[in-house]
Amino acid sequence: MARIAIDAMGGDYAPKTIIEGALWGATEYGVALELVGRREEIEAEIEKIRNTGYILSDCGTKGHKRKIHIDLEKIDYTITHCNEVIGMGEAVGQSIRRKKDSSIVCAVQAVADGRCEAVVSAGSTGAAMAASLFGLGRIHGVTRPAIAVTLPTMREPVVLIDGGANSDCSPEMLTQFAQMGVAYAKLSLGIEDPTVGILSIGEEEGKGNALVKETYPLLKQMHEEGKINFVGNIEGKEVFINKANVIVADGFAGNIVLKVTEGTASMLLKMIKTEFKSDIIGCFIGLMAKPFLRRILKRINWEVFGGMLLLGVNGISVIAHGRSSAYAMKNAVGAAVKVLNQDINGKIAQSI
Amino acid sequence: MARIAIDAMGGDYAPKTIIEGALWGATEYGVALELVGRREEIEAEIEKIRNTGYILSDCGTKGHKRKIHIDLEKIDYTITHCNEVIGMGEAVGQSIRRKKDSSIVCAVQAVADGRCEAVVSAGSTGAAMAASLFGLGRIHGVTRPAIAVTLPTMREPVVLIDGGANSDCSPEMLTQFAQMGVAYAKLSLGIEDPTVGILSIGEEEGKGNALVKETYPLLKQMHEEGKINFVGNIEGKEVFINKANVIVADGFAGNIVLKVTEGTASMLLKMIKTEFKSDIIGCFIGLMAKPFLRRILKRINWEVFGGMLLLGVNGISVIAHGRSSAYAMKNAVGAAVKVLNQDINGKIAQSI
Repeated sequence: MARIAIDAMGGDYAPKTIIEGALWGATEYGVALELVGRREEIEAEIEKIRNTGYILSDCGTKGHKRKIHIDLEKIDYTITHCNEVIGMGEAVGQSIRRKKDSSIVCAVQAVADGRCEAVVSAGSTGAAMAASLFGLGRIHGVTRPAIAVTLPTMREPVVLIDGGANSDCSPEMLTQFAQMGVAYAKLSLGIEDPTVGILSIGEEEGKGNALVKETYPLLKQMHEEGKINFVGNIEGKEVFINKANVIVADGFAGNIVLKVTEGTASMLLKMIKTEFKSDIIGCFIGLMAKPFLRRILKRINWEVFGGMLLLGVNGISVIAHGRSSAYAMKNAVGAAVKVLNQDINGKIAQSI
Repeated sequence: MARIAIDAMGGDYAPKTIIEGALWGATEYGVALELVGRREEIEAEIEKIRNTGYILSDCGTKGHKRKIHIDLEKIDYTITHCNEVIGMGEAVGQSIRRKKDSSIVCAVQAVADGRCEAVVSAGSTGAAMAASLFGLGRIHGVTRPAIAVTLPTMREPVVLIDGGANSDCSPEMLTQFAQMGVAYAKLSLGIEDPTVGILSIGEEEGKGNALVKETYPLLKQMHEEGKINFVGNIEGKEVFINKANVIVADGFAGNIVLKVTEGTASMLLKMIKTEFKSDIIGCFIGLMAKPFLRRILKRINWEVFGGMLLLGVNGISVIAHGRSSAYAMKNAVGAAVKVLNQDINGKIAQSI
């Protein structure tokens, strides 16, 4: 049975939703857990679950909570105590080096020591990334690890890489992101020969910033050598229309895509709510429309994908959203389990 | 009476919707027009309107067309013939230099020659930009013109600058964008002391790519000198929650914000349609929900803002969306008229 290390202290609602989600994930995916963090706080949360026998969580639609039964007797979990926590605002490099006894550093160490097969954290993305990089090292040949994110679209999801690990990139880094993204899309989306595009402004070759213009010919050459299936530039509005299965971007632009998508969707859904509430007939129609809108919410909800994968490190490291609910955390465990048995890192090593 | 030069051949539905929208704008805002393009095609479109006395156009909600009466006798318009058109895919620099007789170059020339006060084009953004820059020149002190875009949010709109004029920027360019954006927001949004943020990943100072990290202290210094009201980093998801009135970005990142917003909204609205159509009850509820959804559509529709303003050139140049309908084009004329009498360029010259 695989064992997953959980950074129990990372996340806006930690340790509560983190532990709830991890235990739920252990139940659903049949894995063991190493819960890493302040023992007292972790035990207090587990005690609550022991007393009731269930947790309350939404299942992909906000504000609609269900009872999820958790049978602690059936879950194989251990607790590893550590004292420190790295906060969201802390300078990443420093805190990783100084706080050797922090939950994220210790959780990564559990993978490095071979006790666990994967680590999941909903804490500071920068800290999780740095801890994974320092603790696990890079796959041979990989210059810089990158974050692969699965985004919902009208049809099958797309893989965006880099989602924010590297703010400044070289063309060579982007070509590696393409290769890692392809390896990941093959496994996670089950596509045999995923198409690859590069995020740009303007559709034609020669459009974009200096980085894109320099990377384009390199990707084109890899295409001609049969290494990847390159389809050219992808504009911001084309991210969601499945023009490519894998979209390559520097971490700055990639993260902006992620966050703007989140922001736009959130604004639209709020507007819809407000609009329906504007009069009594609207309230009535809104009530009837609710199940339909809820299905859409579930389709576009990032929580369904649970976490982003840090590709390029020697081990499985899943970075969950800071605002992770128990449901999101459960799915983050699922995301780790999914790639665990498919030797993603072996495949990345092969392709680089 | 102010006269606006219209690039009648630019845009996906040119010359039809361009001429319709321009004439509608002339009626609504009481301005004269110089329609620039192939005389025969322009006259044919005008002839159609003369015969019916109206145009058919949506008014901010797709697929819901209304009759707009156009009284040609009351509109002061001239036609300036030119033979060439610059297509969407053409290399910008070359085509501007070679095609001296293209509609966009001649329309800009009408402003340069003093016959018109502003130019509006829905053609290739790059061509409109280059033609404006070469034809009108820069305002004294401005390094590079930038595109200012007005984006809808939950509350008052925000100004994003640069929307795509400069793919690669220096920190000094971004500080000028901030100053131009502030001058524009004062006039277009009517805000006395607009707040300024810089698009980044991560909220705290020190987060972002190299460009943002170098620009941040410059903006901070301008804030301390009382030149701008700087509020720090704006993450992608914060664009729509009015954390700043003016958001500064390099043209690559700024254009991605624009296009991803458009793509996300379009996907969501399609999903809503599909979901309602999934069964007979859904169709019924969807029908009732339509007026509510239509109001939202109108709120977030880029067509309402009509065009983006190219700030920093010696004259008014409005760049409309390539897919501009008559309604969008009418509003683009409105956007030009709005800044026309407020001496935006004088204010930019003062602030730089």
